[in-house]
Formats: sequence, C-alpha cells, structure tokens
Amino acid sequence: MMTDADFGLLSPAWAGTTVAAATSDTALAQALLDVEAAWVGVLADAGHCPEAAADAVDAAADASLYDLPDVGRRSAGGGNPLIPLLADLRAELRANDAGEAAAVVHRGATSQDIVDTALMLLAARAGATIRADLATAAAGLAALARRHRTTVCVARSLTQHALPTTFGLRAANWLAALVQAGRRLDAALAGLPLQWGGAVGTLASLTDSLAGDDGGAPVPELVTSLAARLGLRDPGTPWHTNRLPVTGLGAALADTVAAAGTLAADVLTFSRPEVAEVSEPRAPGRGGSSAMPQKQNPVLSVLIHQAALSAPQQAAQLFLAAGLAVDERPDGAWHSEWAALRSLLRLAGGAASQLAELATGLEVHPEAMAANAALTGDLLLSERITARLAPLVDGGKPAVQQLITRSLSEGLDLRPLLRDAVPGTALSEADFEALFDPAGYLGQADAFIDRILADHAAWLPAAS
Amino acid sequence: MMTDADFGLLSPAWAGTTVAAATSDTALAQALLDVEAAWVGVLADAGHCPEAAADAVDAAADASLYDLPDVGRRSAGGGNPLIPLLADLRAELRANDAGEAAAVVHRGATSQDIVDTALMLLAARAGATIRADLATAAAGLAALARRHRTTVCVARSLTQHALPTTFGLRAANWLAALVQAGRRLDAALAGLPLQWGGAVGTLASLTDSLAGDDGGAPVPELVTSLAARLGLRDPGTPWHTNRLPVTGLGAALADTVAAAGTLAADVLTFSRPEVAEVSEPRAPGRGGSSAMPQKQNPVLSVLIHQAALSAPQQAAQLFLAAGLAVDERPDGAWHSEWAALRSLLRLAGGAASQLAELATGLEVHPEAMAANAALTGDLLLSERITARLAPLVDGGKPAVQQLITRSLSEGLDLRPLLRDAVPGTALSEADFEALFDPAGYLGQADAFIDRILADHAAWLPAAS
Amino acid sequence: MMTDADFGLLSPAWAGTTVAAATSDTALAQALLDVEAAWVGVLADAGHCPEAAADAVDAAADASLYDLPDVGRRSAGGGNPLIPLLADLRAELRANDAGEAAAVVHRGATSQDIVDTALMLLAARAGATIRADLATAAAGLAALARRHRTTVCVARSLTQHALPTTFGLRAANWLAALVQAGRRLDAALAGLPLQWGGAVGTLASLTDSLAGDDGGAPVPELVTSLAARLGLRDPGTPWHTNRLPVTGLGAALADTVAAAGTLAADVLTFSRPEVAEVSEPRAPGRGGSSAMPQKQNPVLSVLIHQAALSAPQQAAQLFLAAGLAVDERPDGAWHSEWAALRSLLRLAGGAASQLAELATGLEVHPEAMAANAALTGDLLLSERITARLAPLVDGGKPAVQQLITRSLSEGLDLRPLLRDAVPGTALSEADFEALFDPAGYLGQADAFIDRILADHAAWLPAAS
Amino acid sequence: MMTDADFGLLSPAWAGTTVAAATSDTALAQALLDVEAAWVGVLADAGHCPEAAADAVDAAADASLYDLPDVGRRSAGGGNPLIPLLADLRAELRANDAGEAAAVVHRGATSQDIVDTALMLLAARAGATIRADLATAAAGLAALARRHRTTVCVARSLTQHALPTTFGLRAANWLAALVQAGRRLDAALAGLPLQWGGAVGTLASLTDSLAGDDGGAPVPELVTSLAARLGLRDPGTPWHTNRLPVTGLGAALADTVAAAGTLAADVLTFSRPEVAEVSEPRAPGRGGSSAMPQKQNPVLSVLIHQAALSAPQQAAQLFLAAGLAVDERPDGAWHSEWAALRSLLRLAGGAASQLAELATGLEVHPEAMAANAALTGDLLLSERITARLAPLVDGGKPAVQQLITRSLSEGLDLRPLLRDAVPGTALSEADFEALFDPAGYLGQADAFIDRILADHAAWLPAAS
Repeated sequence: MMTDADFGLLSPAWAGTTVAAATSDTALAQALLDVEAAWVGVLADAGHCPEAAADAVDAAADASLYDLPDVGRRSAGGGNPLIPLLADLRAELRANDAGEAAAVVHRGATSQDIVDTALMLLAARAGATIRADLATAAAGLAALARRHRTTVCVARSLTQHALPTTFGLRAANWLAALVQAGRRLDAALAGLPLQWGGAVGTLASLTDSLAGDDGGAPVPELVTSLAARLGLRDPGTPWHTNRLPVTGLGAALADTVAAAGTLAADVLTFSRPEVAEVSEPRAPGRGGSSAMPQKQNPVLSVLIHQAALSAPQQAAQLFLAAGLAVDERPDGAWHSEWAALRSLLRLAGGAASQLAELATGLEVHPEAMAANAALTGDLLLSERITARLAPLVDGGKPAVQQLITRSLSEGLDLRPLLRDAVPGTALSEADFEALFDPAGYLGQADAFIDRILADHAAWLPAAS
Repeated sequence: MMTDADFGLLSPAWAGTTVAAATSDTALAQALLDVEAAWVGVLADAGHCPEAAADAVDAAADASLYDLPDVGRRSAGGGNPLIPLLADLRAELRANDAGEAAAVVHRGATSQDIVDTALMLLAARAGATIRADLATAAAGLAALARRHRTTVCVARSLTQHALPTTFGLRAANWLAALVQAGRRLDAALAGLPLQWGGAVGTLASLTDSLAGDDGGAPVPELVTSLAARLGLRDPGTPWHTNRLPVTGLGAALADTVAAAGTLAADVLTFSRPEVAEVSEPRAPGRGGSSAMPQKQNPVLSVLIHQAALSAPQQAAQLFLAAGLAVDERPDGAWHSEWAALRSLLRLAGGAASQLAELATGLEVHPEAMAANAALTGDLLLSERITARLAPLVDGGKPAVQQLITRSLSEGLDLRPLLRDAVPGTALSEADFEALFDPAGYLGQADAFIDRILADHAAWLPAAS
Repeated sequence: MMTDADFGLLSPAWAGTTVAAATSDTALAQALLDVEAAWVGVLADAGHCPEAAADAVDAAADASLYDLPDVGRRSAGGGNPLIPLLADLRAELRANDAGEAAAVVHRGATSQDIVDTALMLLAARAGATIRADLATAAAGLAALARRHRTTVCVARSLTQHALPTTFGLRAANWLAALVQAGRRLDAALAGLPLQWGGAVGTLASLTDSLAGDDGGAPVPELVTSLAARLGLRDPGTPWHTNRLPVTGLGAALADTVAAAGTLAADVLTFSRPEVAEVSEPRAPGRGGSSAMPQKQNPVLSVLIHQAALSAPQQAAQLFLAAGLAVDERPDGAWHSEWAALRSLLRLAGGAASQLAELATGLEVHPEAMAANAALTGDLLLSERITARLAPLVDGGKPAVQQLITRSLSEGLDLRPLLRDAVPGTALSEADFEALFDPAGYLGQADAFIDRILADHAAWLPAAS
Repeated sequence: MMTDADFGLLSPAWAGTTVAAATSDTALAQALLDVEAAWVGVLADAGHCPEAAADAVDAAADASLYDLPDVGRRSAGGGNPLIPLLADLRAELRANDAGEAAAVVHRGATSQDIVDTALMLLAARAGATIRADLATAAAGLAALARRHRTTVCVARSLTQHALPTTFGLRAANWLAALVQAGRRLDAALAGLPLQWGGAVGTLASLTDSLAGDDGGAPVPELVTSLAARLGLRDPGTPWHTNRLPVTGLGAALADTVAAAGTLAADVLTFSRPEVAEVSEPRAPGRGGSSAMPQKQNPVLSVLIHQAALSAPQQAAQLFLAAGLAVDERPDGAWHSEWAALRSLLRLAGGAASQLAELATGLEVHPEAMAANAALTGDLLLSERITARLAPLVDGGKPAVQQLITRSLSEGLDLRPLLRDAVPGTALSEADFEALFDPAGYLGQADAFIDRILADHAAWLPAAS
C-alpha cells in the first residue's frame, strides 16, 4: 500500500476533475521531464548535440518510468524535486546506453529553470480546461439572462428585501464577473513565460559551453526555440527573482474562483427551502442523503464556496513570496510558491468545472420569486411610491412616509391609505395602480443585460 | 484632545507620506462629498435641477465643515460612513437655505455608489503619486544598472555563493520587477470605474424620476457625464456585486509592494556590516541611534520590508470579499474591502516613496563586492572549470571534481592542482588563467541588462 | 483641518466603541508615556533617582501635551513612534526645568521595550472591555438557551432541512463557542507580559549603570516592580525575538471574533424575510433606510460578519511576524505586528460590543420556526421513520425509503402511505403518530444544553 | 500509472517525514475506518450489537482494501470522503457475509462525526511525532545554550551591530520560543476532542435507536467509551459548529512552525559565507551542488523558512472557517478546514523534524563571531562608553559622543581619543581598558539563560 500518497480525499472541491489529473505529481513529473526533453531537442536541432541524444531523452522522459514517491522523499536533500528526478533520468539514460544523452541533458540549466517552466506548463494545460469550463458556464449564464429577462424577483441588500429586479439581470451580473475573470485568465495564460537563466540568471554555463560551437544557434535563439517548442512565451530575460509572472497568474486564478464564488454563495442562499428560488441540477450520486431523502444538498455550490474561502490565502502566499525573493534564488520564498500555485490551479479548475454544470443546469423557480416578493408586497416599491406621491400629497414626503410607516406598524393595506391621500385629479386610478407594478420599476435592467451579453459575445470568440 | 483618532503612530511605513494625506479619513470624506457634488453638477448641466442647487452643494461639499469623528461614530448605524455624512450635508444645505439642493443631492443614488466611487477617487489620487515615485525609483535603478554594468559581484542562491554576476544585472532585475508592477498599476489606474447603480443596481429610482423630465439627458448619458467629471471610467454597468475591479486594483498594488519588497530584502542583507556591499542613503533624523552612534539602520528597507510582509494579507481580504459578494449588496464582505483597499494604497504609497529615495541614493561598494567574492575565490567558477577542463583531464569530469573537492577539504590552492592535471599542450597558460576570471563568465548579463533598460525606456514615456 | 488623521470612517465595525477609544493613537501615546513614567517611578522607589524626577515625568506623561500627528510623521526616521515621542517628552521635561528627569527617563530601556509593553497595556485595557461585553453576551445567550429549551426548529446541514432541533440548543451552541473563546481570552489577558530587555535583550545598560548604585534594588527586582506597577506579568526574560506572547493574544482575539461570527452568520440567514426566525433588536438610527422603510437591516450582524471576515488575515500577520523574527530585533517583521494586533483588538472589541447587544436583544419567532419546519413536514423525520419502521415493514428499509421517495416525487401525504405498509398489530395508531412528533426526536438536546449552561456558569465567576 | 496522486514532489518541507506518512490520504482513510470500527466495538461492548459484527468491521477496517483514488473521485458527490468510503466498507462487509455488521456500522453517526474525529486522530498521531522532535530540538538548543554561555558575539538590531551578547543567550532565546510552542502544543494535543453528534448535533438517531435497548449503556456513556477507545477527550457536547477546537490546534501548530522559523531565519543569515558564524550539519545527499561543489546550501533552514512563510495562511483559513460556521453543518467553511489543518500538521511535522536535526547538529564558529565583532570594534560598546565616561569628561555626554563621531568619520582609533579626554585620576588605565571588554557588558545574559534552561527542564518531564 502506498502510504505517503494523497488522492484528493480532503479536496472534494477538485478531486476527480480534469484539472486534478493535469496537476497531479505525475503530471508535474511529466512536465519536468518534458522541459528537459524539449531542451535537448532544441540543442539537437541547433546542432549542439546529436539527434540520437534527443531521441534517447525523449524516450526516457516518461514519468511512468520513475519511482515518484521516492523522488518526493529525496526532494528534501536539495530542496526541490528536480534534483532527484534528474538523477534518475540520467541513470535511466545510462542504463539505456545513452551516455551522451546523460551528459547533455539539463545542459546549462538549473533546477529552478526546470521547476518554474514545468509549473508554467502545468498552468497552460490546466488553464485550457479551466478556460473551456468558464466558457461553458458563461454560455449557461447568458442563456439564463436572456430567458429570465422579464422574470421579476426581489433584489436584496444586507439580506433584506430592497426593490424589484429581474432574475435575468442577476444572472447577467454573475456573467459579467465571469467574463471579466475569463479575460484576465486569458491574458495570464497568453503570457505564461519560459524560465531559462542557468544557476544565477546569466546563462553563463550555456553561453560558455556554446562559445566554441561554431555554426550552432546563438544562446538567445536557443531560448526562443525552447519557448516555442513548449508553447510558452519567451520573456527575454529570466525572472528567477522577479516573481510577478507568478502573482499575475495567481491573481487571475483567484479572480476566477471569486467570480464563481459569488454565484455559488447566492445559490446557497436562494436554494434554501425557505427561499427556493433556484435549485441545483440533480445528478445521480450527488447531493442526496440516504438517511434524509428529503435533503438535496447544493453540493456544487458548497464546493465552489469552499474554493472561494480557500483561494485568497493561496494568492496571499504568492504575493508574500514575491516580496521576499532575495539573492539570485530565494531561500524559502520560492519554495513556498509551488504548492500555493498548484492549489490555485486546482481550486479554479474545480470551481470552473462545477460552475459549468451549475450554470448550465440551474433550475429557476419564478413562482417562488413571486411568492417571496409578495412577502414584502407593495412596500417593495416604497422608494418609488414615496418619490412619486410626495409631490401629490398634502404634507409631501413626510406625509407619505408616515402612511407607509402606519401601514407597516398597523398591518394595514398600503394602497387604500395612499389612495385616500392622493387627490383623484392628481393621479388617475390606472396610473395609481401602475405605481405598484414591480415590472414597471426596473430602471436600466434591460439595458444592463444587453451590455453584459454584448461583452460576453465579444469575449466568446477568443474562447474557441 | 481627540481620543478616537489615529495619526499613523503604528504605521511608520506610510505615516507622513503624500499618500497618507491622500487617503486620510478627511480625504475620504472629501471624496465622498466630491462625488455627491459632481452628481448634482451633472444633473444641473442636464437641466434636471437648477444651477443654484449645484452651486450650493459645491459650497457645502467641503470636508472641513463636518465633524468627522462624529460621522465615524454614527457610521455603525447604517454600516457605512456615507449615511451620516449625507445627513450632515443635507443639514448644512438646509442651514444655508438651500432646501432644493438638499432635496436633489444624492438623487437616485445609493450609499454604495458614493462609497465605491469615492474609494476609486482616492485610488486615482493616491495612484498618481505612487506612479510618480515608481518612475523616480525606476530611473534610479536604471542608472545603477548602467553604472554597474561591469561591477562584478557574487551571485547567491539559497544564501550561498554560486557564480559571478554583475551588480548592474542585479539592479536591472530589480528594475524589471518594478517596471512590470508599474505597467500593471498603470492598467489598473487607467480602468478605475465609476460605480452608479442605485439601491440594487438597476438605477430604477433615477430612471423613474427622470421619466417625465423632457429634454434632459437620458440616464446612460448622465452616468457617462459623471464618470468624465470625476475622471473615472464609465464601466457601462454597475459592479456592486462583481468586485473584480477592486481585486484587480488590489493585486496591482500588492505587486507594487512586492517589487519594492524584493529589493528591500536584498538591501537588508547586503547592507549588513559583514556583507557591506551597499548602504542606504543617509538623511538627517533617519536610521541613527543616539545610544549606538555606530549603527546606521537601513530604515527605508525595514519599512518597505514591513510593507511586503503586510500587503499579501490585505490582498487576500479583497479576493475573499469578492468571492462572498451575495445578493444585490453583500452583508459584510463589501464592508471588509474598504480598510483593506486603503491599506494597500498606503502600503504601496509608502513603499514607493521610500523606494524612490532608496533607489536614487543607494551607495554601492564595489570593493566590498570584490572582497566577498574573494571569500570563495576560484571556487566561484567551479561550474565553469569543471565543464572546460573535464574534456582535457585524464579521468574527465569526476577527476576534476575530485581535485576541486581536495582543494576544498585540504585547503589547497586550486589552480596548481588543476594546472598539474591539464596537459600544457591542451591549454595555454593564458587560456588557463583566463578561466578564473569572473568577468569572463557572465553569460548574457549584458544582453539582459539591455533588454530590461529597453523595457524601462518603453514604459517611461507613459509615465509622464 | 487635520488632514492625516483617521476617525474610523471606514471601520463601522468598531468606530465609536469603547475599544476604539482605548486603542486610538492618543491612547497608544498615553500608554507609551505611562510605561516611561512607571519606569522612572520604579527607579525612584528603588532610590536610583530622585522622587522629583519621577514626579516631573509623571506630569509630562500626558499625551495631550504632544503633537501626535507630528510624532506620526517623524516615526519613519527610526521606524517606530517611541523615538520621536521620547524626544518630545525629554524636550518637555527640559522646558519644565526638569533636566535630571530628562536624563533619567528611559534609562536602560530600548524603544522596543516601550512599544511592546505599551501594546500589552492597550491589550489589557481593551481586553477588560471585551471581556465584559463577552460576559454580557454570554448571559444573553444562556437566557435564550433556557427560554427556548423546548422551542422546536429545523436543524440544517449544507443549507437544507435535516432534522428537528431546538432553538435553545442552537443558542447553547453559540454560547459554547463564546465561553471557550472567553476562557482563551482570559488566559491570554492574564498572561500579558512586560517587555524589558534593553537594546539587545541583555539589560546590559541598566545592569551596568546600576552596578555602582549601592543600596538600590538589583535589576531583576526592578523589572518585577515595573511589571507590578503596570499590572502586567513579569515573564522572567525578554521576548524581543520570541513573539509567541503576541501570537497567543492574537489567536485568542481571533477566536473571540470567530465565536461571534458564527452567531452573526446564522442571524444573517435566519433574519432574512423568507426565514424570519429571528430579528435583530431595533434601536433608533440603526438598520433603517429612509428610502425603503420596509427594510430593517441586520446591521449588528453585518458588522460582526465583517469582523469575522477580517480577523483571520490579521492573525496570519502575527504568525508570519513570529516566524521571521531575526537577530536581536527583527528588520520589519516586528513592525508588521503593531497594526495587526491593534486591528484584532478593535475587531474583537467591536464584535463583542455588538454581540452583547445582539445576544441580549435578539427577538425569536417560534411561529416562523414552526412554519419553516412545516415546509418539510413529516419528511423532517425521515431518518427516524426509516429506522423505526424498517423492521416492521415488509421489504424492510428499502421498502420504507421507496415509500418516502414516492411521497416526495408524487407529492403524496407520507403518513397514509406508511400506515398502509405497517401492520396495525406491529404499531399502534398512537405510537405511529408519535413517530412524527419533532419534539420526540431531539436526542440529547436537553442534556447538551445543561452541560453548556454548566460550563457557562463555571466561567462566569471568573468574569467579575 | 496513478495519474491523480500526489507524492510530496512540491513539498520538500515535509515529504518523506514521519508526519507525511501519518497524514497521508491512506492514513486518513485508515483513521476514518478506525473510528467506524471503534464505534461498532463500543456498541458491541455495551451489548447493542453482536461481537461478531465488531469483529467483521475490525477486519474490514483496513485502508489497503479500498480503492482510495476512486474514493477521492467520488467524494465530490456528497462533499466529503467518508460517504463513498463508508459505502465501500459496507459493500466489503456484505461481500464478507457480514450483513449485520453492514447494518450496524456508522449507527447513529453522521459523516462529520467521522471526518472530524479522524482528523483529530491524525493530529494525535502526527502530534506525538512532532512533540518528540521538538523535545529533541529543545535538548539540542539547551546544550548549545550551556556550551556557549560565554561565547561572545554581536547582537544585531535592524540588521546592524548593536551590542555584545552571547551565543548561549541566542540559543536560549530560540529555546524559550520552542518550549513555549511545545507547551501550547501539549495543551492542544491533550485536549483533542471526539466529535459525536449525529446528523445535527443532537444524537437523535442514536438516542432513538437505543431507547428500546434495555440493559445497554446510555448514550453519554457510549460516547465516553468511544473517546477512551480512540484516546481522545470526551468534550461533553458536539462541536460541529463551534470550531474553536480546530483553531486552537491550528494556532499551536502555527506557533510551533513560527518558533522553528525564527531560528531558521537566523541560521540562514548567520550561515552566509560573509557571516559564517554557524553552519548547518552536513549529511550525505543534502545541500550539495554537483555543479558548484563549494556550495553547501542550508537546506534544513530553507525548508523550515518555507514552512514559516506558509503556515500563517493555513492558520488564517481555520479562523475564517470558524467564523463562518453556519447552521448545524456549514456549507463550505467546514470543508475548507481539512486541507488547511493537514497542511499545518505537515508543516509543523516537517519543521520539527528538520529542527531536531538542525538544533542537535548546528556547528558554531566562535572565531567568526569574534571576527565579526571586530568589524565594529570598540564602537560595539559605545552605549556603555558614553554612559560611563560622560560624567568624567569635560563637556559630558555630548563631548563623548562627539569623540565617537570623530572616530567614526575620521577613522581614528577610539581609545586614544577617549583616554586623552578622561583625566587619569578619574579612571585608572585598567578600569579604562576594562570598559572595552565585550564580555563585561552582557548584563543579565547569564541569568536569562538560567531561567530559560529551568523552564526547559520543567517542560521536559512532560515530554516523556
């Protein structure tokens, strides 16, 4: 039995998702090996080593060949996992009679180059999945915004009934945050940089070793080729002690979780039995309780909410590491980034995955919305009533407010009280009654939905 | 004596700076009043109220007229400071016989509109100062990078001597982070949005109240005018529950602090008496100790380091609030943003201010750099020596490494040991000696400096 | 107008409370001066300086005599506020012709001694208030637990209706957390230590200066006297780089906020109009909205919730500082503690103050609890029904669950379905009906309430 | 290849330690099963089910029997890992023809009972190891404090040379923090509580199901038995929404990491080649660099420092969860605790393990300490010199300070300057020279060491 491994048992928020697999330690080891292999490939292409060496490294760059738990245990010796993995890779190459490959692999690189770049690869791979799930979720929210454009419901502030709004606008607001997060994530993913600087960020070893290689590509071209081969950006210079590439990515991931989180927090409230305005989509094996079959737990939202409570601390970890990045390689701050960055990828990946399902399957209950609005009744429009009737009533605004207060405290119907106070000549019965129609007091709701949908449409093409 | 006020006694990291004044409660109150006044100005311009009302509000929108400690105390009643301040503003207007102004002020707005927008105004005002200080600091670092392009010093990883680098490259790396932070801050400041949505983000009250005002500008135009008047961006829709505008600003500020922090952490190390490679600029009243006159404390770096330790938690606060923004106005999450956002402005403002002084006045001691390099001596080039001599020595790389180890363990001079092992025909004396010149093993240091200086130059124009 | 001061405008969670005054910069300055004065008093008592010097310092140790905004501005020079304040104190003494007092004040001390000790004094002063408010709140909750011991309501898990409980048990659970936090706070407050170590924690200067003072008390006795005079604990050794006294206090304060927070989060849910099981106590000027008079915002809970979202980051700040406390005085970590510790005092103070009012005035609506329970009806007891009827029904547990599911999916009354399935001989009509009484399925609710009340009673005496 | 598993590759700070194994997902699954088995054992002992059922559950409660990656994947369905694991356990029991065991297992419990209790078991198991490593580390520090009681070295504040101290006192101060953390951890571990409350914290199901079991133990006795069997404390009441047991444990773990962290941060500074006052113990495979053999990285300290940068965020997570624990089971806050609590156990476990090795093997270099002190020379005693000579020199303190400043600025030897200023009659040559002996200006260093050693000795017995 493997005693030192984790399988996500304490992380239902992302266990079993695509991103979980894309960020596992096996995936990380594969990414580390991919970077090593890509680099030998670049060297071979440029004539700095034989093709056979590149082929040998390619063949050995398979994470399944290595004892990863052992790599984990040995990582403490040098403070990072690449050192023991590289030793094992070289041993594998030598065992395969590829001594030249063993000599050339990792040429001129340092472990930070490989670890940083591998984490960017993980981000790229996980990011594509997150992006796709965000696009799915956004499409679902856009559909909700369109479908419920005229579904009136209660808008709440500080938990209390305030004014009418539409469920379409609420969905659009969720969408607005999601699209904004998506754009930020796109920008972060588009800029994921290669790290290549050698032991202290000068590429001295590489430069020195190639100084005599006539005919091969110069160092900067090699680095550019490596970036291209890995699908990363060539940043021009190493960023071994400038960790803003990491904080930028982390902030975009934290934004993604936050955008999902605000929706989930709303669903948690609105799917309470007493509110019942929405329900999570049901699926076999999810949310049920065998002992209490009446329960249908909003598990998707619970897990997203958990992510929203967890991501901020991981983001803080990255900002902290960036502010303490001393020397030419930090003495612990760098190491504190890894788990935090991966946690953010996983939290964002889990949240996006659950959100895709939640947003496309959310059940909306307009009748419950109407019933909840009825709890407050005409008072939901007190802001409007006061503004509109004050000029017509003797005593003005204070008089209207007094009538509203009286209605509240004495439990009297508001309309007759007001009708008596407004001269019939000042306001027709029809106009008076129209004042109490929530659907007539929605302001710019429709225009705002249109703007958000347009913003979403402008983002969408970039998604594909 | 004012018993409930703070004057920055526990915050030397920003007390007394320009940003401190730009973000004080007085400045906040002024910004709140500015927003109210600007809005009445917009209404008057559009013909929705008399110019006299706008003039009256302008005159009363002066924070010095109000009892701010009392406003603070009363803010608990409604959970935000605008409610009591608005009450006092209206009372002032009525006391000035400007009843119509009292009636029109805040028309259609909600307290969140004013508070959010005022915080964006504070950010804009503080941001301009931060930006200017960053530009000054960057210019100082660029000068250091140029001046010390050939100043060789030790590069360190995990605190230990690794290889040679130049102080110019180190300064350039500090600069690279600073310019990246500066660009992010620029983007954040350029996008600071107006918040204008009314009680629940529909602008229902405003829309309703203007429905009958023929000839006035329609609602969206008014909002656009207000944004223009305040120098903020019109975001098109309210963002009362989408708090990504706040997290984006917060992340840019945390990045700014981190970029300053990594430099400060280095200066704290390098200005230790045992290292002594740099010194902070001296100034009267700073860093000295009357009891211990030999001490010259690196106070600028201490305060920046403090900021770097503090900003991450404030950024986390913003991400957390964004992920919990429920309903049409959150029930505590919104409130938790204010102090955190202001702290970030202050920490970034203090750090930028101190960094400007530090970066432009940093004293560099090349002789100490040379002395420190001498501690490791030829071994500083062991990476190069091994690579270059391995092909020439009988026994290859292991043989060279053994000689190096022997030199280390037995305290023997490395050069004679190696010279004996390398056939004279394989390497001339001159070429052999050249191997030990740190200045000859700097890789792409120069090219990297050039790239960073070019990046800085490209950013600079935008600064002015 | 004072432009650099804060009056709590962004902190309604604690602005205007007793703790706000007890932790203001004025209060801090007073505490700093109190420590200086107490020390001269101790020296005078021990015959190490004239009584007149102590009297002169006592007279000058009045925060209202000093220009605190100016002290704040000058604090950046040495990185802490004591340095400029001490300079001003000495100037004041000299201006009062008390040159000897000016010479003796601060004798053998270092600024960290004064700042750390003054913060402990603030904690002691603020802590007493917090403790009193917690005791009031606890008494309120105990009364609720007793009063509503038999008030049946719905227990919820993951937001959904699960089983019956009593409101008395819910109140008791709130109380349990509060008493546990109270005990931890008591322990922390009882152990608040004096800091007295001199420049580097050896008391060398003091020891040296008293070496020749025959007849005076030895150094350790002086320190013990100082602790006694200030009402703090003499820790035996300085803790200038062991910051666990600070983390321990911070954790107790964060616990206090958390205990209040869980209650407030519940009140925010349960006071929603759709749930309506509780209401916050009303007070003039609190929670109302002039535009929307139907709204009664649960402002106390909003502010406590805000504190619960904010305290964790401040606690993290303290743990971080403790783990980075280098040398004999840390280079920024120490400085990062001050604002965080004060924030925790204020957040806990505000939360305790609001909780005292909330817990003693909470309105409970048993009829709404019953109505909410009725939403789920007999299904609220499905766990019990299944367990009890499975042995009696043909087909056992699956058969019972199938009937429950059928009731759910077809909207049929559950009781007739079940009654048909249970042989009358197996269960009498009365026993069958009794199964559906929520009050009969409360398990150990009563016993748990008793235990919590006993725990509360055991804590109470220590409170006074 | 297992694609979704983690093996600690990104966590060298704890990978491969005893605590890593004690907190792996396998260990967690075993703890979950242990709790289920212990409960059936208690029921059997009390006569509420057959012994055979308990035996069957015991046999099946073996984590190696289950597909844990699959359990991880299925945990999202109900939001926690116990639900799928329990299903698999029941399936295993049924496959073993132990249907009665399958029926009785988990009787009256809820998944939160099992998860919370299992985490407390993990804490108890990991805690014992942490405790033992702390004791080892403390013994090492005590030995250092004794051995270097008279080893004079420079004390530093804000990174600069301040006054003399002894390395023994520095070690003692590290020890003081460690012992304080150890005491807090002891208290937390001694109080680890069982969680047993059933679905909503009333134990209704259990109470109801045992109502008819004559002769069996009453519910409270069963719970007490379960606690005893698991080696946990019976808290008397459930704490499903009072999460202070978790924050208390988390704070003690964070304190442990912080106490280790301050030492590690010092070692990182003091083992820099330029300072060289201490070296980490060497071990094969640790800290070396094949490319740069001169490097001996202080890896133990790097990893502890990383932990010290990471633990605060995890502690914040726990305080946050505690403040948001709504309803009778929180909707995400609870879930956010698990990974954070485990991270703290691992960070503390890794830090304690590395600290044990670091503290017992730290190499101390008194000659380097003397050399570093010589950098500042007599000025290291300027505080003393000023105090002692001021009364003897014409012009008093300002005159002495002027001479010191002159010595500093003109690079003149301080002693002759001062000797000239002090009348020979006022101070003998011997007494004058004695002023410059750092060993004579150590104040209470010895007494403080004694007190800390005594405190350590008082703690030690409890350790065994």
